[in-house]
Amino acid sequence: MSGTTSGTPEPEPTGRGGAPPVIAVDAMGGDHGPEAIVHGAVRAVRELGLRVLLVGRRTVVASLLAEHDALREIPVVHAEDELEMHEGALASWRRPRSSVAVACHLIRRGDAHALVSAGSTGGVVATSTVRLRTLTGVMRPALAVPLPTGEQPTILVDAGANADAKPEMLVQFAHLGSAYARTAFGVQRPTTGLLSIGSEPGKGNKLTRKAGELLTAAGEAGTLDFHGNIEGHDLLTRAVDVVVADGHTGNVALKTVEGTASFAMSAVQEALTSTRLAKAAALLQRRSLRELRGRLDSETYGGAALLGLNGTVVIAHGASGDTGVAHACRLAHDLASGRMDEQVRRRVPHRQGHWFNRFGQHEER
Amino acid sequence: MSGTTSGTPEPEPTGRGGAPPVIAVDAMGGDHGPEAIVHGAVRAVRELGLRVLLVGRRTVVASLLAEHDALREIPVVHAEDELEMHEGALASWRRPRSSVAVACHLIRRGDAHALVSAGSTGGVVATSTVRLRTLTGVMRPALAVPLPTGEQPTILVDAGANADAKPEMLVQFAHLGSAYARTAFGVQRPTTGLLSIGSEPGKGNKLTRKAGELLTAAGEAGTLDFHGNIEGHDLLTRAVDVVVADGHTGNVALKTVEGTASFAMSAVQEALTSTRLAKAAALLQRRSLRELRGRLDSETYGGAALLGLNGTVVIAHGASGDTGVAHACRLAHDLASGRMDEQVRRRVPHRQGHWFNRFGQHEER
Repeated sequence: MSGTTSGTPEPEPTGRGGAPPVIAVDAMGGDHGPEAIVHGAVRAVRELGLRVLLVGRRTVVASLLAEHDALREIPVVHAEDELEMHEGALASWRRPRSSVAVACHLIRRGDAHALVSAGSTGGVVATSTVRLRTLTGVMRPALAVPLPTGEQPTILVDAGANADAKPEMLVQFAHLGSAYARTAFGVQRPTTGLLSIGSEPGKGNKLTRKAGELLTAAGEAGTLDFHGNIEGHDLLTRAVDVVVADGHTGNVALKTVEGTASFAMSAVQEALTSTRLAKAAALLQRRSLRELRGRLDSETYGGAALLGLNGTVVIAHGASGDTGVAHACRLAHDLASGRMDEQVRRRVPHRQGHWFNRFGQHEER
Repeated sequence: MSGTTSGTPEPEPTGRGGAPPVIAVDAMGGDHGPEAIVHGAVRAVRELGLRVLLVGRRTVVASLLAEHDALREIPVVHAEDELEMHEGALASWRRPRSSVAVACHLIRRGDAHALVSAGSTGGVVATSTVRLRTLTGVMRPALAVPLPTGEQPTILVDAGANADAKPEMLVQFAHLGSAYARTAFGVQRPTTGLLSIGSEPGKGNKLTRKAGELLTAAGEAGTLDFHGNIEGHDLLTRAVDVVVADGHTGNVALKTVEGTASFAMSAVQEALTSTRLAKAAALLQRRSLRELRGRLDSETYGGAALLGLNGTVVIAHGASGDTGVAHACRLAHDLASGRMDEQVRRRVPHRQGHWFNRFGQHEER
């Protein structure tokens, strides 16, 4: 579909008109290997009723499907190569036949509508950016991650796709995040905050200060509901629906949330079993604590969505088990069904053109 | 003392030779006003045996001291002005007679050896940088904060003094943080990590990648024990003794740790009292949980130390109560007694000179 605009006679890319979208799952990515991915795909089909196909080495994937007795339920598309877990940006050129590249090809042909991969973030971002291209007017795609704030999450964007960003990109990230909040969580008029080091305007590094000015202007123009700077304290307090950051700051913040939550839960576990009396009491709280652990667990939020491309891309946590993969498939389904791309087209002004619409993270100015 | 070097006949600035250092406490800073600060100073004297003087409006401070019956224990130095809580960098010029400026003057004259303030970070950093100046060879002072990892904390530096840093500054922050780890926590050969978005070298934004190269070179030269990149996940896992970051990334990370810890503890509290049975059980665990809460509470670590100046500066959390102020006084005492400045002089090469030894955050290149 890349290169074509709406109004073409080609098959509907997001399943509009009745048919649910097809999710292409990269069987080869992830720390736990194809076993966990295939198991997650089977659960997505059987438990969530999604349409899924698996992309990867046919013999490996087919034999795993056979173990689940699911050979007839999930089609397999062969890919002879795969991205290594620590492969970064160059992977997109080095491995044109990787499972991720083949999945992107399926999306461009209209045979699939979304990609789910638990592969290396750098490799998946680079490959899908090159192969799917950004939507008209979008400078760079951005990773959006729902923070574990409860039923209505706060979305952090960019969580790590662009280590070096421009101020203008942060305004686009705000638009992408708003479209996401609306599509995935039904927020009608999402509020946006800028992650910085003080709540007053003018706080932060040069990039953030300049982005703050542009976001304020967008707020005054009525294209965004911008609530000013927010700080690290506010990430989990539901201060806003969308938190915007450059990919470096956003990625550090996201991993710090994950690390601190996990640290706190371990410390609580330790405190609760430190005396015999406390230990006995902890038995009575097992269920509540397990639920809380689940809520803070990165697997439950399905993964990061790479926003701004011609096609839906969801990157599951590298350590995803089958539950994480199934949740990522549901997120991909919701985003593809909600026609994120149309919403983004409405929000991002076309006149900004393709200034940065090529792949490359290192150029300055 | 500014402008003089060692070997002068002036009074010893850090109380070497028997006399403990004198801590000048800014009575006017902090969200809770002078009441909490004066109470904290009284506790520092009575419970910790420290030498303290209070700087602020004499009538206000004296009447609060009278309430504690402590007029004879703690001298008061009058300052007619004070920094506002949201006052930033310009405060240093706008308020030459603020309590912070007067306290710095006492340090320069040798009448005090350390400053403790719970005032606005921006205002205290700017004022003390202008009035105390950086140690020879140190480009910019940096805020160091011990993260709540347990008995042996990991020190994060810079936690917010320099929103826009240079790669060379991050190497100096590593030296400053190492000197701090040794002085405050007795770590003989502190290990250092660089906060980034991936553990492999070459991950991160432009500033971080360049800083990583310089830190690697310093590690190979044997002046630092550099362990490479660390990620947000690793901040609380005791992966290294010192984590280096620019002030923007570091401040976001610190506040994210604080916010997430507080969020997790509230969620635990809620989970533990969600059923009647769990609630009954929670009563048996009150003490363990209170201890844990204390450990994760920012008041217990005493505050951020502003490293690299001619004089010890500790910035307590704005929301510090009397406990936080007393802990900050103890930290200031430890740093001043340990002659941090001498350690920094040994570590930071003099030939780097005073390239950036002036106040200003906004210049580039």
